[in-house]
Amino acid sequence: MTSFAIIGHHARTDGGFSINDLPGSGGRMDVLCRCVNASLFLSHDMRRDTDCYLVLCGEPAGPRTVKFSGALVRSLSPDERSAAALIKKVIDTPCGSEFREAAQGVFIRKGGLDRLITEHTFAVLDENGIDIRKAETLPEAYLLSDHLNFTEGEEILIRDCPRYSVGPKCLHADHAITVLRNELDRRSCGWT
Amino acid sequence: MTSFAIIGHHARTDGGFSINDLPGSGGRMDVLCRCVNASLFLSHDMRRDTDCYLVLCGEPAGPRTVKFSGALVRSLSPDERSAAALIKKVIDTPCGSEFREAAQGVFIRKGGLDRLITEHTFAVLDENGIDIRKAETLPEAYLLSDHLNFTEGEEILIRDCPRYSVGPKCLHADHAITVLRNELDRRSCGWT
Repeated sequence: MTSFAIIGHHARTDGGFSINDLPGSGGRMDVLCRCVNASLFLSHDMRRDTDCYLVLCGEPAGPRTVKFSGALVRSLSPDERSAAALIKKVIDTPCGSEFREAAQGVFIRKGGLDRLITEHTFAVLDENGIDIRKAETLPEAYLLSDHLNFTEGEEILIRDCPRYSVGPKCLHADHAITVLRNELDRRSCGWT
Repeated sequence: MTSFAIIGHHARTDGGFSINDLPGSGGRMDVLCRCVNASLFLSHDMRRDTDCYLVLCGEPAGPRTVKFSGALVRSLSPDERSAAALIKKVIDTPCGSEFREAAQGVFIRKGGLDRLITEHTFAVLDENGIDIRKAETLPEAYLLSDHLNFTEGEEILIRDCPRYSVGPKCLHADHAITVLRNELDRRSCGWT
């Protein structure tokens, strides 16, 4: 099982955003939607062995974590609006501290990174990390930030996480996920 | 200079599509918009040494070629709607057989692949091609299809093009561009 988690620092935590304005009213929800796409989609298939977590930290509620299960999700297309429509559908579902399935294969719970980081052994994708091509083995769970840097509080939570770099240029989070997936695909298929 | 060209087999050739329905009314214009993003964006910068050509082949007009110049384009954000809004703006601009700048850094002309292929030495990204990591050198211009295979007529036009593969899994066009860009970045920066 491979897991990706992306922090959306200003991502809206209720349904009060417009699908027609994901960057603005959604608090850069567009970034998170592209990360869902990069995590889960093959050309004519879905990566059923993958979960994608979105940690929404914006207004107006406290942090929420949305989980897209590659094994279970339905009604998801690769365009940004499709993922956004599912987020908008689940985000106002009453939930507690345990994941609740609020659309097929899409779950929500209260809480953010402080809880999630106790459940996975995350590696952080970071331009100053170890080159993924040079690493002898690669972990199964990866944490990324959206268009902003990790906050000081987040840096404390992730201080012990190993850090990996996907290449010499600073990329958008979804592009970094795509490059990493390619390295994982190559290793699993014996393309060295 | 690096160039990417993507064939949009059903991509609408006038402004009669909705920015709110790029997959349907746009004829999978969402695919092309993600390819523009993958071709041109770094995390906090634009790849100024890159052009991205979209070959629109859908209804109702004859084929149109839209060129996004990384060096010149302004008002482009990474979300799908942003690229789509520029396409919608330029697509109804009267044009002939030469590129006309119809928005800043975005050009349009009549004609499709048959013309474009005489102007660039394209390599084709194809899952049956040579592994990009194994190739001694890599070309500067790449041609991809959208979610559909190349047509028989296109296959005739590209029969002499070298073919490269980005990995063992069949990827969306934009993901393939992202993986290829990473290989080009690594080579240009001495990350072997």
